[in-house]
Amino acid sequence: MARFISETTFEDIPERVRSRVKLCVLDTIGCGLFGSTLPWGKIVWDWASEWAGKPVSSVFGRSRRLPPALAALVNGTMIHGFEMDDLHKESIVHLGAVTFPAALALAETLDQCSGAQLLSAVCIGYEVGARVGSSIGTSHLLRGFHPTGTSGTFASGAAAAKVMGFDVDLTRHTIGIAATQGAGLMSAQYSAMVKRMHAGRAAQAGVYAATLAQRGFTGIENVIEAEYGGFCSTMADSHDLARITRAIGHEWEAEKITFKPYPCCGSVHTALDGLIEIVNEEGIDYGDVEKVRVQVSSVTKKHVGWEYRPDSVTSAQMNMYYCLAALLTEGRLTVEQFTPERISDPRILDRVRDISVEVSPTLDALGPLFRHSVIVEVSCRDGRNFEKRVDHSRGSPQKPMSDADIVDKFMTNARAAGWRQAEDIKAAVMGLEDLGDVLLLAGLIRGYARTD
Amino acid sequence: MARFISETTFEDIPERVRSRVKLCVLDTIGCGLFGSTLPWGKIVWDWASEWAGKPVSSVFGRSRRLPPALAALVNGTMIHGFEMDDLHKESIVHLGAVTFPAALALAETLDQCSGAQLLSAVCIGYEVGARVGSSIGTSHLLRGFHPTGTSGTFASGAAAAKVMGFDVDLTRHTIGIAATQGAGLMSAQYSAMVKRMHAGRAAQAGVYAATLAQRGFTGIENVIEAEYGGFCSTMADSHDLARITRAIGHEWEAEKITFKPYPCCGSVHTALDGLIEIVNEEGIDYGDVEKVRVQVSSVTKKHVGWEYRPDSVTSAQMNMYYCLAALLTEGRLTVEQFTPERISDPRILDRVRDISVEVSPTLDALGPLFRHSVIVEVSCRDGRNFEKRVDHSRGSPQKPMSDADIVDKFMTNARAAGWRQAEDIKAAVMGLEDLGDVLLLAGLIRGYARTD
Repeated sequence: MARFISETTFEDIPERVRSRVKLCVLDTIGCGLFGSTLPWGKIVWDWASEWAGKPVSSVFGRSRRLPPALAALVNGTMIHGFEMDDLHKESIVHLGAVTFPAALALAETLDQCSGAQLLSAVCIGYEVGARVGSSIGTSHLLRGFHPTGTSGTFASGAAAAKVMGFDVDLTRHTIGIAATQGAGLMSAQYSAMVKRMHAGRAAQAGVYAATLAQRGFTGIENVIEAEYGGFCSTMADSHDLARITRAIGHEWEAEKITFKPYPCCGSVHTALDGLIEIVNEEGIDYGDVEKVRVQVSSVTKKHVGWEYRPDSVTSAQMNMYYCLAALLTEGRLTVEQFTPERISDPRILDRVRDISVEVSPTLDALGPLFRHSVIVEVSCRDGRNFEKRVDHSRGSPQKPMSDADIVDKFMTNARAAGWRQAEDIKAAVMGLEDLGDVLLLAGLIRGYARTD
Repeated sequence: MARFISETTFEDIPERVRSRVKLCVLDTIGCGLFGSTLPWGKIVWDWASEWAGKPVSSVFGRSRRLPPALAALVNGTMIHGFEMDDLHKESIVHLGAVTFPAALALAETLDQCSGAQLLSAVCIGYEVGARVGSSIGTSHLLRGFHPTGTSGTFASGAAAAKVMGFDVDLTRHTIGIAATQGAGLMSAQYSAMVKRMHAGRAAQAGVYAATLAQRGFTGIENVIEAEYGGFCSTMADSHDLARITRAIGHEWEAEKITFKPYPCCGSVHTALDGLIEIVNEEGIDYGDVEKVRVQVSSVTKKHVGWEYRPDSVTSAQMNMYYCLAALLTEGRLTVEQFTPERISDPRILDRVRDISVEVSPTLDALGPLFRHSVIVEVSCRDGRNFEKRVDHSRGSPQKPMSDADIVDKFMTNARAAGWRQAEDIKAAVMGLEDLGDVLLLAGLIRGYARTD
């Protein structure tokens, strides 16, 4: 198909086809001319021309600013850029990557936006995105959609409407404009950079939606539950509408967020935890470990337990052998272990041979909720053997990272980006409810930018 | 849900939730800071910051220009602004509204782009969008998607890659970036303005895709056929991959385009034709018609045969009852029958009660290519009854509008927009292969703008 597009010349296209298409173009232009006079044609024009060149919203690590919708797209892509951003497990949505960029970009367009207002908007965005996403959950994922790009539009739309202080009616239209822009195909996970952009595009949809709704552009009023062409009925084979409002305002989804301590696939996390815990508890040096054997579920074996070959940073991030071998070799697993050079480091490749990953029928028998369960066995060079079963990863709601651990992770990421404002950002975010104007935080995010 | 978003205050959110979300925000910012240093983070930044404020691309009837991706979004929305733009029936994609805005917006970024190059790009965009869209066809529509917004990304992506003169590899990445942005829920048809924007957003996806691919951003290389998370497997319950390449380069989809004589949904056209033909052939006055009964396919019943309620211009345009009733009442069906006042005119609402729309198993049995087939039965007040089966609408390939009719339609639309350049545009488009630089056409489209 790409060959056909690329190589077909003007002369290859029959004259009768070109003539027909000229009429199509003429007809199209006529429709456009007429459309340019219609209310919605005028709204999108006013909206686009007002924001097109207005650089008000901040981007991570860049001193220049962008129009809000583009800033949200770029920031969402950056946040989802290395498999490290937070995750709501039931909805399978990376909520931070879609809510925060939308809310911040819009906050910067307001006369004033307090930290409390921004924080409320993000809380509400998490709540709505998690609930709508959970109503379609694995059925949605199994159809082939990337939930962060699709259900994520509810999170960004809700955060956007809330930060703008919209009433019920405008909020409904915002959600109804955002949700119909939900997009993202899961086949992007195998290599494409565009997977990172699914989050950005969802964040952008929220900004588009709120700014258009504000001008009177109308959205789908019953977009969640419409029987034909509604979000839930269209995007999944089965759905549970009751999940969306069950105990809303009483149970909060933000409490179920998983933080990722390691910059790699979530399915590798429990094995890493097991190895680290044994080494720490027994006072073993990584160099004294002779062999590591990991028993996993069939799903995890298929997902991340395939034979490692150095290929791309993504494939190292998705491979259990590499991740464990890098940890054994370097004593840590940070972004530094996932560079184009490191993924084929002979010392790490050597260590890969000391690791085995095997399916355990016992773990399989526990069912899908335990698909991340592992049994880690460590054999030391001095003959000692240790074994540990891990069901939940560090960072999950069942085994939460401490606040200090999360702050540590932030500082590491900020330092990796060469950032000097890390301490100030930490203070601003941890005291967000007392921040008078989020422009301070936005300025810190731009920082002393190095690369514009 | 809108009420929850709008009315929940900062104080309503428990302190423990706000604290948790502050940590989410901190984690999110850390990921963004790190992401801002990664290759794909840098690409989207360079791309966004280069185009954000560069107004190079023309918009219908406005003298000011916009960045290309926004121009494509606005123009696509305008073209699809009144249900008058051309349609490829099998794929159910409005190809003009997605290909032309993408191709023109990008053409204006090039040093020079000939009319032949633009025309080739639009031809190829029609071909690819029609073929991929046809491979999922009614299965896709019945799931609840708006194919112009979804399959339309293949049309805009192909047109964009072609107008840029990309090689096979860049073209593949362009398609693989565009297609994963395919979005649009069919519930928008009941009232929302956002339905118009589905076309604009698809056109924009093509511009995003080509300009990102050009900078090294990678797309999904096998996006059409990927077994898990590919476009066809994800977006429809059944698909026919062979349809996509069958006789490609020999049979051309542009020859199967339907032009719309009436400003309403294509699925209403055959019923309108049937009523008009009976009235004209039998010399009946519309006022003498007592009842109209229309038998339709199940797809058409679901699409446009729902009970009419005055809501918005969009819902009137998408409803067979309203369209037939307006024709009965006013004797014509032009843009004047679709105003906010007219759609709840009591005379027309009265006439709605004289109409019935029923599913015919006989028509269903003919298969998806006959989904527009109708049997129109007219009962007159004087007791006479007439019946007519219509398989193809006026404007369809089987019952084509003449070139002169299409030019007439263009002139009507251009005049309605108050345009003085209509004759010049007609000449430029009809001689597109001889146009040295499309900037001339772009200038005519901007025109002597009245409303910037």
